[in-house]
Amino acid sequence: MVAIKQVLTIAGSDSGGGAGIQADIKTFQELGVFGTSTITAVTAQNTCGVHGVYPLTVEAVKGQIDAIGADFQLAALKTGMLFNAEIIAETAKGISKYGWKNLVVDPVMIAKGGAVLLQEDALEALRGLLLPLAAVFTPNIPEAEMLSGMEIRNAADRKKAAEKILATGTEAVVIKGGHAKSSAFAEDYYLHQNGETFILRSPWIETEQTHGTGCTFSAALTAELAKGRTMQEALHTAKRFIQAALSHQLHIGAGHGPTNHAAFQRFPEKGRVHLVQ
Amino acid sequence: MVAIKQVLTIAGSDSGGGAGIQADIKTFQELGVFGTSTITAVTAQNTCGVHGVYPLTVEAVKGQIDAIGADFQLAALKTGMLFNAEIIAETAKGISKYGWKNLVVDPVMIAKGGAVLLQEDALEALRGLLLPLAAVFTPNIPEAEMLSGMEIRNAADRKKAAEKILATGTEAVVIKGGHAKSSAFAEDYYLHQNGETFILRSPWIETEQTHGTGCTFSAALTAELAKGRTMQEALHTAKRFIQAALSHQLHIGAGHGPTNHAAFQRFPEKGRVHLVQ
Repeated sequence: MVAIKQVLTIAGSDSGGGAGIQADIKTFQELGVFGTSTITAVTAQNTCGVHGVYPLTVEAVKGQIDAIGADFQLAALKTGMLFNAEIIAETAKGISKYGWKNLVVDPVMIAKGGAVLLQEDALEALRGLLLPLAAVFTPNIPEAEMLSGMEIRNAADRKKAAEKILATGTEAVVIKGGHAKSSAFAEDYYLHQNGETFILRSPWIETEQTHGTGCTFSAALTAELAKGRTMQEALHTAKRFIQAALSHQLHIGAGHGPTNHAAFQRFPEKGRVHLVQ
Repeated sequence: MVAIKQVLTIAGSDSGGGAGIQADIKTFQELGVFGTSTITAVTAQNTCGVHGVYPLTVEAVKGQIDAIGADFQLAALKTGMLFNAEIIAETAKGISKYGWKNLVVDPVMIAKGGAVLLQEDALEALRGLLLPLAAVFTPNIPEAEMLSGMEIRNAADRKKAAEKILATGTEAVVIKGGHAKSSAFAEDYYLHQNGETFILRSPWIETEQTHGTGCTFSAALTAELAKGRTMQEALHTAKRFIQAALSHQLHIGAGHGPTNHAAFQRFPEKGRVHLVQ
């Protein structure tokens, strides 16, 4: 008998396999945890863009969550694309009902090509219903700006935005630096309700093969939390995982290709991340 | 730059992660190919059964297939749960349109608990539209009985049923022996249009952890065909993969638990399969 931690992703489906529940399932598999899923919306998507979004009904989302809740023992879970306020409300209800802990909330809002993956009225539901349940929230800079209602131009802004985000009730926030293109480093800034703070810094990787980066990072974080790692350890491994996935490129498709989910296991030295305290 | 073969699964989603596109994506990842997917129906499912089925529209299926066709280079693909005649017709149309080769058709019809995963009128569409495009068709014994319209009680019946199935136009068929419980072996019988035939035999594994066995086997077969293996080599590896997955049990959930998709890479000696010619 094999002991394996069980995890859940509540998110959209990416037909192209680089993002969404597909990226999550691949990442979970690579990191040795058992992945289950609740699909909120199916997208017709490839490396060039999102060509169609087909949301599931709230009933279908509830059905999937209840099937998981009735039979699986989750050690951690993540949310990705939740699409609308009703699905967010149902998701939050399910998480509370089953008492699931180690919730990673990744705020999937807008695709690289500009497609809206989270409807406007859903932002309040995300803030008011889901973030109070989160162990950690993982916005990139544009998402952190939207959630905090302020621009982030420097380290002081980033700290202030993180503090504003903590007011929603999330236990911790990590503002990812992958959109700060002028930097020589990709710096992720972490802040916890208890004041704990650090930066994870890695060399900037110049690549167009970035499809699903956010999904993959948050899935790796979920897998590591499921295994009982501390938040700092889990974030460190997740950043090493995505560094390796970005470094060892696959070049699939004509647009922004997927990251390489297998790279971390095969080339762990590609994940170079420094903790700055 | 990493060269990796791209594959597609057109199938249902299993929230429980042991079958459907989730089993396929896990298997593809373990065998080193890049998985994409087209979801035909979302199920609310766990190890105890199927609690809800939410089919996608034909338009959504077409949208996903076209997103894949426009951007990915497929080396092989598989179909699983296609649910109804309209989705089968759209799937066949897409496969012809994009000229996809190495098609593995797994006839997902009825779940272990009895839930209908293929509507009755869909059998004719499967037979008339999809099987003529297949490189290999992978029914278990009850499915082979349904497709051939005859009972299979012994080796002579099995050969006759395979011949009847070849009349649909599929290039080859493998009738899997996993439902012949009286046997000391799990015997898969292969027959090709050109007369090539063999049996793959492995020790019977007594286990209740069989959820997604068929999906996993056909996904492994698809991955190996994508890598350029011959049909005999690909079937041999696929059977070793599922033998390992059944041998090294996870014990997840209260019902028929999922197979262990990671076992073949970690414990390859668990997959013992003999070729009988």
